[in-house]
Amino acid sequence: MSELSHLADAGASRMVDVSEKPVTRRIARAEAVVEMQPATLALIQDRSLAKGDVLEVARLAGIMAAKQTAHLIPLCHILPLDAVQIDFDTAGGASLRIETQVTVTARTGVEMEALTAASVAALTVYDMCKSVDKGMTIGRIRLLEKSGGRSGHYEREPQL
Amino acid sequence: MSELSHLADAGASRMVDVSEKPVTRRIARAEAVVEMQPATLALIQDRSLAKGDVLEVARLAGIMAAKQTAHLIPLCHILPLDAVQIDFDTAGGASLRIETQVTVTARTGVEMEALTAASVAALTVYDMCKSVDKGMTIGRIRLLEKSGGRSGHYEREPQL
Amino acid sequence: MSELSHLADAGASRMVDVSEKPVTRRIARAEAVVEMQPATLALIQDRSLAKGDVLEVARLAGIMAAKQTAHLIPLCHILPLDAVQIDFDTAGGASLRIETQVTVTARTGVEMEALTAASVAALTVYDMCKSVDKGMTIGRIRLLEKSGGRSGHYEREPQL
Amino acid sequence: MSELSHLADAGASRMVDVSEKPVTRRIARAEAVVEMQPATLALIQDRSLAKGDVLEVARLAGIMAAKQTAHLIPLCHILPLDAVQIDFDTAGGASLRIETQVTVTARTGVEMEALTAASVAALTVYDMCKSVDKGMTIGRIRLLEKSGGRSGHYEREPQL
Amino acid sequence: MSELSHLADAGASRMVDVSEKPVTRRIARAEAVVEMQPATLALIQDRSLAKGDVLEVARLAGIMAAKQTAHLIPLCHILPLDAVQIDFDTAGGASLRIETQVTVTARTGVEMEALTAASVAALTVYDMCKSVDKGMTIGRIRLLEKSGGRSGHYEREPQL
Amino acid sequence: MSELSHLADAGASRMVDVSEKPVTRRIARAEAVVEMQPATLALIQDRSLAKGDVLEVARLAGIMAAKQTAHLIPLCHILPLDAVQIDFDTAGGASLRIETQVTVTARTGVEMEALTAASVAALTVYDMCKSVDKGMTIGRIRLLEKSGGRSGHYEREPQL
Repeated sequence: MSELSHLADAGASRMVDVSEKPVTRRIARAEAVVEMQPATLALIQDRSLAKGDVLEVARLAGIMAAKQTAHLIPLCHILPLDAVQIDFDTAGGASLRIETQVTVTARTGVEMEALTAASVAALTVYDMCKSVDKGMTIGRIRLLEKSGGRSGHYEREPQL
Repeated sequence: MSELSHLADAGASRMVDVSEKPVTRRIARAEAVVEMQPATLALIQDRSLAKGDVLEVARLAGIMAAKQTAHLIPLCHILPLDAVQIDFDTAGGASLRIETQVTVTARTGVEMEALTAASVAALTVYDMCKSVDKGMTIGRIRLLEKSGGRSGHYEREPQL
Repeated sequence: MSELSHLADAGASRMVDVSEKPVTRRIARAEAVVEMQPATLALIQDRSLAKGDVLEVARLAGIMAAKQTAHLIPLCHILPLDAVQIDFDTAGGASLRIETQVTVTARTGVEMEALTAASVAALTVYDMCKSVDKGMTIGRIRLLEKSGGRSGHYEREPQL
Repeated sequence: MSELSHLADAGASRMVDVSEKPVTRRIARAEAVVEMQPATLALIQDRSLAKGDVLEVARLAGIMAAKQTAHLIPLCHILPLDAVQIDFDTAGGASLRIETQVTVTARTGVEMEALTAASVAALTVYDMCKSVDKGMTIGRIRLLEKSGGRSGHYEREPQL
Repeated sequence: MSELSHLADAGASRMVDVSEKPVTRRIARAEAVVEMQPATLALIQDRSLAKGDVLEVARLAGIMAAKQTAHLIPLCHILPLDAVQIDFDTAGGASLRIETQVTVTARTGVEMEALTAASVAALTVYDMCKSVDKGMTIGRIRLLEKSGGRSGHYEREPQL
Repeated sequence: MSELSHLADAGASRMVDVSEKPVTRRIARAEAVVEMQPATLALIQDRSLAKGDVLEVARLAGIMAAKQTAHLIPLCHILPLDAVQIDFDTAGGASLRIETQVTVTARTGVEMEALTAASVAALTVYDMCKSVDKGMTIGRIRLLEKSGGRSGHYEREPQL
């Protein structure tokens, strides 16, 4: 197992130098799941048939958070993202699944942007619904796929 | 089950008016768990015996994120936090558990600050270790306890 | 006509000292109008009958901008806002009217927050629709009402 | 009339994918007008003959806001701007006209940056002068010209 | 010599809990000095007799930075500042002295806000003049006075 | 001595147009020194042998500040930094020296990013230690080296 790339020799953290890496088109996909009571999910779904809705607020929060990633995760690079997309579906039981996809043309990848977008979208769902369901749990935040970088294509094996 | 408090009558989102709520001391505790390979956890633990370390970067990222909560979660209120504390322990298997506690003296609570701190600390752990373990999964992000508000004391039942 | 309160004696700008002013509940209301082609307004209205919609994105942008006011307007004070509300209606012809209301319990007022929310909501409408109507014009950004401060109640005379 | 480009098929908002667009030099010009009492304009002009001045504060606020555009307008792209310029003139009657020009070398244009700079500069003028003239109105925020993109050159017809 | 208050028992950093401290009016004053070539100082002074000027840009940058202190210094508290003031004078030889004063009504002091304002104002002077004098040095950034807190009045002994 | 490049002809500040400059790899190095009491330095050094430590917090604050430079220094360009590195050593007497290096592939240099990183790291050291040593002074903030731009290589002559 190789070294942790964010820690320099003496154990000091640093932002990894990417200046020698090629500029390529890179895509990352991630997900998060919010488990809640069935009545909460129903409430979200009913609202979303009307005008304003929990999912739209969550979606925008996720997109905006993707753009703030380098200011949240200390050692991330600032990247001029080409695209951010966030989708929702139900994930079995009373679970809401959030899937994000981020695209960039740059020297480093956008895993953290995709994961941050998923996390903040999930936190926003919590915030919107916490008055009715404090027990909601956010989980399964993970990278689904990553392409375009030097380390090759990565895709998580379907398991769950 | 009551209405979602962030949506006004016509379905439009709004920031809930808290001006009639009393200023009280409020505390919230939350957690997140990062599941990883045993070798990754060992690497984090070894590093943390040296100087720089993954956990310290994650801790600072979480504290700083707590202060940015109102700019990440669209309908949250800006709150002048009194304290933010973040602790780590292992959670069984190759899991790292993050526990956060946020304190404020204000008209509304800090659940979202505690949850955001936990989430961003977990994302930072992912970022610091992703070069060796892309498959890490963040989960169990949830509120543990909340006190000081009008709605009374909330404590999640111990279950897992 | 009195002095401009943001400029100190020697002509230097400064953030006005509000520490002697009383903490009171303060409210400000503002508006903005976006003039567009009738077909653009129709498109906004049709979308808003579906799920995602221009107005909801604009609303959230305005709310989030209200919270960023002190970081946009150089001499504004950071204020822990109690509430932000944004409503839309049509304003005669093919015009969309945006009305904002901001509430705070603080030593200074929230006119700038109300005006900033209206402006950024309007800019977001432009951004969402610019692919179909580059000629849209934003206007009539103005303070409608202000209460709770030392200078008394202000309400703009109805004129237009 | 074509589709609104920020809304995906199911009505969900997304950040438009620009990764297939060519990197070109792009320029946008915008304007805003602040209508005020003649005595207010005189006060601004007299100050500007001295040292500190309303226009310089407004200019800097506009420039800094241009750089924050992607964090204010939810679906805008982060762009490494090459230049931002802001000029002032009087616009007939007691009106102050603000003209902005933004330049970038990127995959998408800077209309929103130019419009945001103009809006925030105008809001700052309001903030600096509101102690003497609460009735000021900001208007005529609009795109004047846009060049360098795939959609060709756009210039607003002179009308007013 | 007492413990460093930002490090909890196990060596972990945390944001100090100020919830038990009284809300009082607190003031801090700080300074910074920019040493430069005489010709550079002359250039700054001549410009400042005209319209735009280096000092005004630096002043605004310092004021805005004071408001961002909690987002720059990881363990600082967010504070709703009552006032920020920045003055300039020459400090002997070809040196520009910057003095800042920050006021707040809060549970903790504003030393870091005063120091941050001075530092960023000085950095801005460097940025504005670096095309003519890369060798400028910023120094003597230090706290001059602090009042209103539990630890009593602090005033640096005049020495230099 | 040439003109100050940030001021346009009429004395108005503007962000310099860099669109005609070539994209090259650029590096800047800067330093800052924090003078303190010997007991304070000992305390920092002892802590750094343990787990959490002042230097690690300062390092991260400096790295994150480098990424915020364009939002702190009004006329700086937003740059997608390739790398940021921060090192510490003692500088004779009871002084802590901070050295920063920033790398970018862009149309303009990163002097301000290197200087801002050094300054904010130094301010963070002050914040972490101010409970034991309010008299600490930050000084010698200066550019050490700059390469890769049109103006050629710059290296400060060793003097101190």
